Amino acid sequence: MVVELISVGTEILMGNIVNTNAAYLAEQCNVMGLVCYYQTTVGDNEKRLTETIKTAMSRADLIILSGGLGPTKDDLTKEICAKVCKKELVEDKASKEAIKDFFQKRGKKPTENNWKQAMVPKGCIVLDNPNGTAPGIIMEEEKNTLILLPGPPNELVPMFADKVIPYLKSKQEAVMVSQTVKIVGVGESSVAAQIDDLFEKQTNPTIATYAKVGEVHLRVTARAEDEKKARKLLKPMIKELKNRFSEHVFTTDPDVTLEQSIVDLLVDNDLTVSTVESCTGGLVAGRLINVPGVSEVFKMGHITYSNKAKRKIIGVKRSTLDKYGAVSEQVAAEMAKGGFGMTKADVTVSVTGIAGPDGGTAEKPVGLVYIGCCVKGKVTVKKYNFSGSRAKIREATVSAALVLMRECVLAYVSEMAFGKKK
Amino acid sequence: MVVELISVGTEILMGNIVNTNAAYLAEQCNVMGLVCYYQTTVGDNEKRLTETIKTAMSRADLIILSGGLGPTKDDLTKEICAKVCKKELVEDKASKEAIKDFFQKRGKKPTENNWKQAMVPKGCIVLDNPNGTAPGIIMEEEKNTLILLPGPPNELVPMFADKVIPYLKSKQEAVMVSQTVKIVGVGESSVAAQIDDLFEKQTNPTIATYAKVGEVHLRVTARAEDEKKARKLLKPMIKELKNRFSEHVFTTDPDVTLEQSIVDLLVDNDLTVSTVESCTGGLVAGRLINVPGVSEVFKMGHITYSNKAKRKIIGVKRSTLDKYGAVSEQVAAEMAKGGFGMTKADVTVSVTGIAGPDGGTAEKPVGLVYIGCCVKGKVTVKKYNFSGSRAKIREATVSAALVLMRECVLAYVSEMAFGKKK
Repeated sequence: MVVELISVGTEILMGNIVNTNAAYLAEQCNVMGLVCYYQTTVGDNEKRLTETIKTAMSRADLIILSGGLGPTKDDLTKEICAKVCKKELVEDKASKEAIKDFFQKRGKKPTENNWKQAMVPKGCIVLDNPNGTAPGIIMEEEKNTLILLPGPPNELVPMFADKVIPYLKSKQEAVMVSQTVKIVGVGESSVAAQIDDLFEKQTNPTIATYAKVGEVHLRVTARAEDEKKARKLLKPMIKELKNRFSEHVFTTDPDVTLEQSIVDLLVDNDLTVSTVESCTGGLVAGRLINVPGVSEVFKMGHITYSNKAKRKIIGVKRSTLDKYGAVSEQVAAEMAKGGFGMTKADVTVSVTGIAGPDGGTAEKPVGLVYIGCCVKGKVTVKKYNFSGSRAKIREATVSAALVLMRECVLAYVSEMAFGKKK
Repeated sequence: MVVELISVGTEILMGNIVNTNAAYLAEQCNVMGLVCYYQTTVGDNEKRLTETIKTAMSRADLIILSGGLGPTKDDLTKEICAKVCKKELVEDKASKEAIKDFFQKRGKKPTENNWKQAMVPKGCIVLDNPNGTAPGIIMEEEKNTLILLPGPPNELVPMFADKVIPYLKSKQEAVMVSQTVKIVGVGESSVAAQIDDLFEKQTNPTIATYAKVGEVHLRVTARAEDEKKARKLLKPMIKELKNRFSEHVFTTDPDVTLEQSIVDLLVDNDLTVSTVESCTGGLVAGRLINVPGVSEVFKMGHITYSNKAKRKIIGVKRSTLDKYGAVSEQVAAEMAKGGFGMTKADVTVSVTGIAGPDGGTAEKPVGLVYIGCCVKGKVTVKKYNFSGSRAKIREATVSAALVLMRECVLAYVSEMAFGKKK
């Protein structure tokens, strides 16, 4: 089945906002095995929107429109879809009630133009919107299906996930099931080289590679007549990928982030953590604290951007700073060890580096970063050379710090297990 | 002049990446007064790409294409543009040299297919690419101008900024000059209401509103025959907006961020800063440390996520935590005051809140946040109720912490100035 995406909105045409809806919808459609050849953005203009919808209907089976369902006169998506498909607009009682409720809960009164949002093309499927006042709409026409979604991502995403995906799946003869093998510590091209043979002969399941900052995700998708059979097809491929990338795989759950997997690892092994950051200035701790329930393991964090703070808070020696400089293996080690002693956490991660744009030298260029990790007194330090803007270097550093931390904790855990076995 | 954007790439169609190029190009075109009616994304497919280019040429003066300039056979943008415009491809010596250099600098050898990137449509303007191997191309045809840009944003953005914008400006009879009035501490709708009269009668200069997290940006654009005249037109409007929003305006420079303006304010007034964070877990410090040169003013930061850390590091009283709870005005105040005493910074900002998704109660719901700021011993605490996901709440909190910090520092500075006058 061929799908086409139409984003409606002047804000996108003028570059006021980035079109994250299109990326989300495209990825979800791709997971379901729908093929997308075109994505178009067009403004709230009757002539151009009509033409865009007609063109899409001539070349795709399914058209997903987002935006233009608001209460103002400028919002035309629903009206034009109805006109193109020769449907009249009728009032939907449930939507009217929902709009009433929505305003009541917020202690506000709907204005007259809000009722426009309760009008829907005759015979359509209405998708209620718990996060806003514009219901979603599915129009099943002779040759095409049109799906109209509200523009705000916090309305569009849950509506698509909760209502549109089940609808589309119910229309498919085959079921598609995906799992994502998330890998750290191996570069994208190395991952690609290691699965080249699998890639070559892939039919069902298929593999798609996604590079994220510091991570590579392999999404494996199987197609079968029911979910059980699809899962059965997935299993050997997931097993094979886990074998090939062994400890570099941190999860196969699409919803689990790297920081979540690290917090889980710490919780499972009853380990606490603290951070001592210089150039990342709190962002490593900030990523860990993304995880709800991190309070079980996170003891405290320190941001020691200046040399004085490194000495005063963490006890880095003045002589070490003088001899090796703040961005050095030795200082990273003393930061990790000092933080470990001071915070009494089982694991302490430390970061010191030159994020730029200034401050680099021939010997210590911008992008040079040392990351330390102390687990129960044992310190590991690694050297990195990142490139790009200050923001890029800091982002890469945060990711590398999490990866190093994970490696050190895994090494400690396996050492303990080995020790016990002896 | 009407512009149309065409993004070429399967990664966008499949949702692997978000199309930030389109947003960047759209905004830049809009600033220059170019009108954009359509943005299209299409894959590396000869038939569909040809059709998309022809359609764009039939309805726009200027077509900007991004992506599909790589060295592989799949990369077709240049070949198809040449074919549509009936131009042959010829080798560009300078591009060939640049490709050779690019690889040499990295200690690598170009492969045979890299030389494809040195081929350009006969008679075009070649834009050299210091960040990659694909040169940009401008084709001035009879009725249209086509601009071909490489897909990676770190190549596209500098090429557009450094080469395409000057080119396009040189073609315009009128000069457009913009300035951005950036506002904090006033909501978007309130800003809109306060400039309704200016908005109504706007002709030249024009005003456009952009809502960012915690900020509202007003971009004012004037059009005149030369830059000097355009700046003269801008001046009274900028003055008027500064008058209306007075201390809420933190900059009129498009490149200055909120954190930059705060660091400048601290530097100018010889004040140092420290942070004590709970739910934001280092992100407030992380934002401040975005600013190169922050080391002049940033003393240190502490992440006191647990109650124990709040007591141990910052000296929040156990009795205060027991009586009022960790998320309370009193604890925020003790965190700010304690951090101030401990770090000996002139300004200390503190954050405590419930970021969710769990941990909320009827009395203290998810999204409840207290932010404290201590300037030279004087503590201010404000209460906030944010909504949305854990990430949204934390992002809004970071922004609010910066805004409160700015307010408190400004109040201190004006008090000092007033004191001196007396």
